[in-house]
Amino acid sequence: MSTLTDALLNELRLTVARVDERAVDDACAMLAEAGRIVVCGCGREALQMQGFAMRLFHLGLPVSVAGDMTAPPLGAGDLLFASSGPGETATILSLMRTARDAGAGVLLITAQPAGSAARLADRLLVVPAQTMADDRGEKRSSAFPMGSLFEGAMFVLFEAMVLKLKHRLGVTDEVMRARHTNLE
Amino acid sequence: MSTLTDALLNELRLTVARVDERAVDDACAMLAEAGRIVVCGCGREALQMQGFAMRLFHLGLPVSVAGDMTAPPLGAGDLLFASSGPGETATILSLMRTARDAGAGVLLITAQPAGSAARLADRLLVVPAQTMADDRGEKRSSAFPMGSLFEGAMFVLFEAMVLKLKHRLGVTDEVMRARHTNLE
Amino acid sequence: MSTLTDALLNELRLTVARVDERAVDDACAMLAEAGRIVVCGCGREALQMQGFAMRLFHLGLPVSVAGDMTAPPLGAGDLLFASSGPGETATILSLMRTARDAGAGVLLITAQPAGSAARLADRLLVVPAQTMADDRGEKRSSAFPMGSLFEGAMFVLFEAMVLKLKHRLGVTDEVMRARHTNLE
Amino acid sequence: MSTLTDALLNELRLTVARVDERAVDDACAMLAEAGRIVVCGCGREALQMQGFAMRLFHLGLPVSVAGDMTAPPLGAGDLLFASSGPGETATILSLMRTARDAGAGVLLITAQPAGSAARLADRLLVVPAQTMADDRGEKRSSAFPMGSLFEGAMFVLFEAMVLKLKHRLGVTDEVMRARHTNLE
Repeated sequence: MSTLTDALLNELRLTVARVDERAVDDACAMLAEAGRIVVCGCGREALQMQGFAMRLFHLGLPVSVAGDMTAPPLGAGDLLFASSGPGETATILSLMRTARDAGAGVLLITAQPAGSAARLADRLLVVPAQTMADDRGEKRSSAFPMGSLFEGAMFVLFEAMVLKLKHRLGVTDEVMRARHTNLE
Repeated sequence: MSTLTDALLNELRLTVARVDERAVDDACAMLAEAGRIVVCGCGREALQMQGFAMRLFHLGLPVSVAGDMTAPPLGAGDLLFASSGPGETATILSLMRTARDAGAGVLLITAQPAGSAARLADRLLVVPAQTMADDRGEKRSSAFPMGSLFEGAMFVLFEAMVLKLKHRLGVTDEVMRARHTNLE
Repeated sequence: MSTLTDALLNELRLTVARVDERAVDDACAMLAEAGRIVVCGCGREALQMQGFAMRLFHLGLPVSVAGDMTAPPLGAGDLLFASSGPGETATILSLMRTARDAGAGVLLITAQPAGSAARLADRLLVVPAQTMADDRGEKRSSAFPMGSLFEGAMFVLFEAMVLKLKHRLGVTDEVMRARHTNLE
Repeated sequence: MSTLTDALLNELRLTVARVDERAVDDACAMLAEAGRIVVCGCGREALQMQGFAMRLFHLGLPVSVAGDMTAPPLGAGDLLFASSGPGETATILSLMRTARDAGAGVLLITAQPAGSAARLADRLLVVPAQTMADDRGEKRSSAFPMGSLFEGAMFVLFEAMVLKLKHRLGVTDEVMRARHTNLE
C-alpha cells in the first residue's frame, strides 16, 4: 500500500499540524474536570466520537454516548462534547441548545468556526479539514470523499488527547486495559 | 383497533400468566444485588433488553448494554443478563461462556429451558412463548410472526420487574425521572 | 405473575382500544406505498420503532433506521415515520423538518395531537397514553413510569400493523422468515 | 499539535506500508462482486467497520452492519467482512462460523494471521499492528494504547479501498454524495 495511503496520511499530517495545541489542552482540561460527559455526532463523525468515548471510559472519566440507554441528563458542571464538521448538523445543534439551556458546558469539534454550531459552543476545537460543507467545486481540497479527512483527523487528534489525558490523570496502561470489557 | 390487538393482548396474558413469579423475584434479587450488570440479546430481543436497561439505569443500578462503548468487563459479583428466546443464539452463548469463565453470574431469559443457553445460566427466567425455535409447522402456536410473542412478553414482564425493583430499592418516581436524559 | 402484569395488560388494552383504526389503516397504506422509509424516535421509543423496522424489512419494504450507516436520504415519494410520544422531542422535530423540506411525507406516532411534532406531520397515529408529557402530578394516569404505557402500546399496535401489512402485501410467513438474518 | 500526532502518523505510515497491496485488491474484488455484504467487529474495530460500511453504501454496494435491524441473512454468493485485530474475538468467531456454514464467503481483517479467526476466513487482509493480543510487556510496540494503531490503520486502509472501489465501479463523487442521508 502506497500512493493512496501516503496521500491520506499526508493530508492528515497537514491538517492536524494546523490544530491549535492550546485549544487541545483546553479541551482536555474541560474533559478532565467535567462532572458528567456526553459525546454526540452524526454519521461517521459519531463513530469517531464513540471511539474517543471508549478511551475516556478506559481513563475512568464519567462518559456516555448520546442515544445510549444509559446516557444521563446533563446540567451545571457537566459537558456535552459535540461534533459537527460542517457546523450545521441540525440534530447536533438541537442537542447543543438543550445542553446549554440546562447549564452544561459545550465543547465543539468542527471545521467551520463561523458555523451555527460554533455559536452554541463554549469552546471550540477547530480542525481545518474538508467536510460536507466544502467538498464540491472549487472549495474541494481533499482527494478523499466528503468528510473523510475531518473524520481521520478526529481519530489522530483524539489519540493524542488520550495520551495527554492519561498523563494528566496519572492513569497507567494496566488500569486502562483492566477497564476494557471482556464481553466481545 | 380491536380484533388483532385483542388477539395479541390475549396471547400475552396467557403467556405471562405462566411465568413463575418466584423466578421473577429471584431475578429481581440478582439484579438488585449485582456489582455490575450487563444485558445482551440479539435482534428484537436486544431491543427489549435495552429498554429494560434504561429503566434499571433510572432505578440507579449499575447497568450497561453489551456492545456499548462504556460497557465494563464482568467478573466475580457481577451479572450478565442474557436473552435467548430460542435458546441457541450463537453470539449470546459465546458471551455467556465469557461471563461464566470470568466468574460473573449469568441470568437468562428464554423460552427453551432445555436449550444450550439454559445450560450456561445460573438462573432462568422462563417465558413459555413461541420464538424462532418453534414458529413453523405443527409447533406454531401464535398468530404473530417469529418471536413477537416472546418479545412482547419480555416488555410486559420487565415493566412488572421495574415496579418490583422500585419497591425493593425504595426509589421514587421523581428520582427515576430525574435520571432520564435531557439529550433527546 | 399476576397483579402487576394484569394491570399493565389492562392499561394497554384500554389504550389501544382508543386508537382510531382508520388512522392505522392509513398509516399502513403510507408505509406500503412509500418509496423509501426511515424510522426515528428517541430513547425507548426508538427501540419500538427499530423493532417495527425489522418486521417491515421482513415484509420486504425498503426501510432504514435513522442513524444507521445505511440510512438513505429522503425526498419526494419517501416517508419518515417518526415517534414522539410527548410531541416535543427536539431532535425528532429537527428530523421531521428536514424530511418535510426535502419533500418527503411524514407520519407521526404520538400521544399529543396538539404538540409541536403533530404540526410537522402529514398524518398522525394518535395513541392516547401517558408519556413524559403528563406523567406527574394530577395528570398522571398510569401505574407505570414515564412513557412505558405509550411504548408498550407501540409494540402492540405495530404487531397488528405487521399482520395488516402482511395481508395487504401478500407476504407469507415463510418469505418473512427467510429474510431474517442468520448472523446472531 | 505536533509530537504526539506525528508519532501516531508515523506509526500508521509504517504499519500501512507493510500491508500487501495484492491482498487489498483481492479484498476490493470480493466486495465489488459479493451478492450481499455484512460487516462486523467488536468495540472500536466495529466503529471502523461501520464507517467503511457507510462508504460502501455511498458506492452503491449492498452492505449492512451486523446487528442492525435491516441486516439480511447471508448465503452462497454473499460476503461477511469481519474484523478481529487480535484474532480471537469470540462473538466474531461465532459469526464467521455461521456465515461459512451458510455458504457465504468470509473476508477477515486481522493483525494475527495465525489466530483462530484467520482459520475461519477465505481471505485475509493482514494489518501488522499492535492489538490487544500484544500490547503488554516485551511484545508492546506502539506508543498508543491497546488496539489504537490497528484501528487507525483500518481507517487509512479503508479510505484507500474506497478510492480503489470508486474507480473500479465507475462511481462519481456526485453519485456517492447524493446517497448520503439528509437525516442528520
